[in-house]
Amino acid sequence: MDGRHSGTATTRSDLLRLPRPYLLFLGDVGDPAYAKTAFGVRDWASAHCVGECRLDGGRVSLGLPELGPREARMAGARALLIGVANVGGVIPPAWMPMLLDALANGLDLVSGLHTRLASIPALREAAERHGRRLVDVREPPPAIAPANGRRRSGKRLLTVGTDCALGKKYTALALTEALRLRGVDVDFRATGQTGILIAGRGIAMDAVVADFAAGAAERLSPDAAEDHWDVIEGQGSLFHPAYAGVSLALLHGSQPDVVVVCHDPGRGHMLGYPDYPMPSLEDAIGLNLQLGRRTRPAIRCAGISLNTSAMDPASADALIEREGRRLGLPVADPVRGGACFERLVDACLDAGAAGRAG
Amino acid sequence: MDGRHSGTATTRSDLLRLPRPYLLFLGDVGDPAYAKTAFGVRDWASAHCVGECRLDGGRVSLGLPELGPREARMAGARALLIGVANVGGVIPPAWMPMLLDALANGLDLVSGLHTRLASIPALREAAERHGRRLVDVREPPPAIAPANGRRRSGKRLLTVGTDCALGKKYTALALTEALRLRGVDVDFRATGQTGILIAGRGIAMDAVVADFAAGAAERLSPDAAEDHWDVIEGQGSLFHPAYAGVSLALLHGSQPDVVVVCHDPGRGHMLGYPDYPMPSLEDAIGLNLQLGRRTRPAIRCAGISLNTSAMDPASADALIEREGRRLGLPVADPVRGGACFERLVDACLDAGAAGRAG
Repeated sequence: MDGRHSGTATTRSDLLRLPRPYLLFLGDVGDPAYAKTAFGVRDWASAHCVGECRLDGGRVSLGLPELGPREARMAGARALLIGVANVGGVIPPAWMPMLLDALANGLDLVSGLHTRLASIPALREAAERHGRRLVDVREPPPAIAPANGRRRSGKRLLTVGTDCALGKKYTALALTEALRLRGVDVDFRATGQTGILIAGRGIAMDAVVADFAAGAAERLSPDAAEDHWDVIEGQGSLFHPAYAGVSLALLHGSQPDVVVVCHDPGRGHMLGYPDYPMPSLEDAIGLNLQLGRRTRPAIRCAGISLNTSAMDPASADALIEREGRRLGLPVADPVRGGACFERLVDACLDAGAAGRAG
Repeated sequence: MDGRHSGTATTRSDLLRLPRPYLLFLGDVGDPAYAKTAFGVRDWASAHCVGECRLDGGRVSLGLPELGPREARMAGARALLIGVANVGGVIPPAWMPMLLDALANGLDLVSGLHTRLASIPALREAAERHGRRLVDVREPPPAIAPANGRRRSGKRLLTVGTDCALGKKYTALALTEALRLRGVDVDFRATGQTGILIAGRGIAMDAVVADFAAGAAERLSPDAAEDHWDVIEGQGSLFHPAYAGVSLALLHGSQPDVVVVCHDPGRGHMLGYPDYPMPSLEDAIGLNLQLGRRTRPAIRCAGISLNTSAMDPASADALIEREGRRLGLPVADPVRGGACFERLVDACLDAGAAGRAG
């Protein structure tokens, strides 16, 4: 086996076999942007969440019952799910006591971090001692081939973004649900840890070796019936100083007919990169179409998904309307939904149909 | 240790400790473009090459003495170096008999392929039995951090390209040598297997996990004196359907003051991708500057490196002159050298100085 894909003590992601329900671990993070895994699982797999736990200093809450590992086990939890990430994806020493406590109290551990649980001797030993599983959903599948660039059948929609952590996964899940409600044959294609935890399958794009990243995106959304849609969760941003390469590989390999650009209007600079200003929506639309044309000449932008979670409803509605007029495109916040979101769904279907005709 | 960076039976690259001289193995490839490792080592580390060997069906030669492993060992070789690559970087079964023969005859194996030598049980067992080493130069260093996007001191030049395998490494080595001859304090920074074999250090960019690719590029060319130059070997192409993500991560992480665009004027389509036309030089210049500005606003294109190896001297000279006039930039073939190459070196130094002033 290739050394890149090793992980002998690691369990491959498979939601059907993931231990659930979850106790969601929030660590000691102070910024909800770093807890997007926990929020995503709560929002899209709420039936499988019994509670949340955090460390001293943590200031993020999901609004779930606050339970320790022992209480959570008694309430039916099967696993502690690490619901937060930090730059680099490591497990800080401060997390260890609660993770070990969870194993000792009968919970498996489920993680989407870069650092594999099984690579930490203390966790591995405790899991063995207590007969518990360590599940790393980020482990990519073995034997991914480089991208071949060949056109695939079926329709594809990719959510792209101006930055990380501003709603690409949420938008893809909401569009998937909306398309399904309209009778479209649609699959959500997860590219990150949270999406995989929700969907039960997928490929963690950012964990794939760089040479195979576009090939992984090709494998993620294979040939399908011409009226089938894959709604693919975007990653990073073409403007991100660390992750633009991942975003470009995903754009090239996905060959999307349609992109929806996700944006947080309240963010002044790239998250964690104060020297890097956010790109404008015009620039984000333009660059995604410019680069996406290389593998999918008919690519179109159907509209904008605005993350207005920090705004009151009236301000959000006004901004959504103003941006829609300014850009001449449907703009919506999928969390708020409403008529403007339905117009965005219409535009996705129209753009897909236009691409087929073109 | 992180599973991504495992490879317990693999030796880290270090030219000073690499077993040399080499017997260069050419496999059964028919197209010299797939033997760029062997040609590069012959051209830039010729004192360490005692001969070449190939399999039935192989049609590529380096012009070195043709030796079997046993003869090569008697001629002083210490290692068989796998000098060819194929799409996907695997070791085909047809290569195994000669690799095992080399181990049995006292040669170590040195490889820059994606597939690690030590991951192949038959090679691992034979190496152990014969007391030989398996050296994988592509193994990336452990614990690479994501890119931080911070401006670094010193000058950086990155060779970029319209496609793979058309002269980015060669151009970087030639520019390094030319700058050194002019008294510039300069380092060649290797990003691929051949470059690492030549330089004795570097990071195989395409083997790094995608999330850390730009961070690896940052680590490769650290802060330096303001008049120090790093000449960084480019990888892939922003226009490549499989590898554009690697190229963008390298561009962003390198933060080059200067790019030199490498091109093969005789190539009709992307190597191995007949449906993908080559980009124009104008488009390649434009896109590299457009995307490179994100992390290095003062980025400039100093000129063009044309691979005219398939042309006669008169035609090559005419094309070089014509392209230079058309683009308004220095154009040269570093293999042919001459006054136009010296003008390209001038332009690199001028562009670096202009960037400092700007």
